[in-house]
Amino acid sequence: MEKTAATQQTMEQVITSTQLLDHWQGHRRLTRRVIEAFPEKELFEHQIGGMRSFSEMVAELLAIAVPGLEEIVSKKTVEFREKSDFGHSKNKVLELWDESTEKIDMLWSQIGLERFQEYIKLFGQYEGTVQSSIFYFIDNEIHHRGQAYVYLRSLNIEPPFFYER
Amino acid sequence: MEKTAATQQTMEQVITSTQLLDHWQGHRRLTRRVIEAFPEKELFEHQIGGMRSFSEMVAELLAIAVPGLEEIVSKKTVEFREKSDFGHSKNKVLELWDESTEKIDMLWSQIGLERFQEYIKLFGQYEGTVQSSIFYFIDNEIHHRGQAYVYLRSLNIEPPFFYER
Repeated sequence: MEKTAATQQTMEQVITSTQLLDHWQGHRRLTRRVIEAFPEKELFEHQIGGMRSFSEMVAELLAIAVPGLEEIVSKKTVEFREKSDFGHSKNKVLELWDESTEKIDMLWSQIGLERFQEYIKLFGQYEGTVQSSIFYFIDNEIHHRGQAYVYLRSLNIEPPFFYER
Repeated sequence: MEKTAATQQTMEQVITSTQLLDHWQGHRRLTRRVIEAFPEKELFEHQIGGMRSFSEMVAELLAIAVPGLEEIVSKKTVEFREKSDFGHSKNKVLELWDESTEKIDMLWSQIGLERFQEYIKLFGQYEGTVQSSIFYFIDNEIHHRGQAYVYLRSLNIEPPFFYER
């Protein structure tokens, strides 16, 4: 009886680690479709109100996801560095996106359940827990992708459905 | 020893229920500042590319948050219904926002840890777990607020910092 209760307790997660990975990768699949929806020129050049182009925002997302997880896994501080070596090619953006997708899966498998509540100082400056950092990665992606929806609408392009992952 | 291990296991949450509530309310505080940043007229009228005004998006967010949680708590299906009775008043929007803030706290305290993995069909149509539904509420808010950032920038208004909650 005691053991069953304990086992049941361990199953009672608000969200499991696997679910959180699926949740993120689902969002990343949607972001990939948003990148695809942009004509190549507009991906790199279109903006509103002095904001960055969506390609620049994607460069930020790529600079956060894998390097952030690498730091969480290795516990070695790295400097935050955006390097947008897309060469004005949408295919290159998608290629780097897909490379990150695989690396995220691989790195995630190395993050044990006991790590999510651990305090870290990501990129040497952002303090929080592992979970709050990962939620920041995801939320920041949703935030910028929402902006890309406005860019697409302003170009008279229908964005992919938000609820399709 | 056994008991300590079990206790430790129950503490090992990716994100605890309390943390998830704080996470959401942190986002809601930011959304409130974004509503405040809009001039009253533009909150109700400004849009880009045929999209909705931010006040209409806020009406959607309000129609999801409390009614969604009420359904999760009561297990009684309600129909999804947007009623934007703002009367073109920014103060009214903020007042309804603050009312929701309190109701969310109250309803949240009635959602036990065992509920998050339960399957539900929200508003009679959206299938998922309690956790995936709640993450949808939060993500949908981040998504539309990101769009409001573009609206504000296009009006030459600086939005609040994304990372301040």
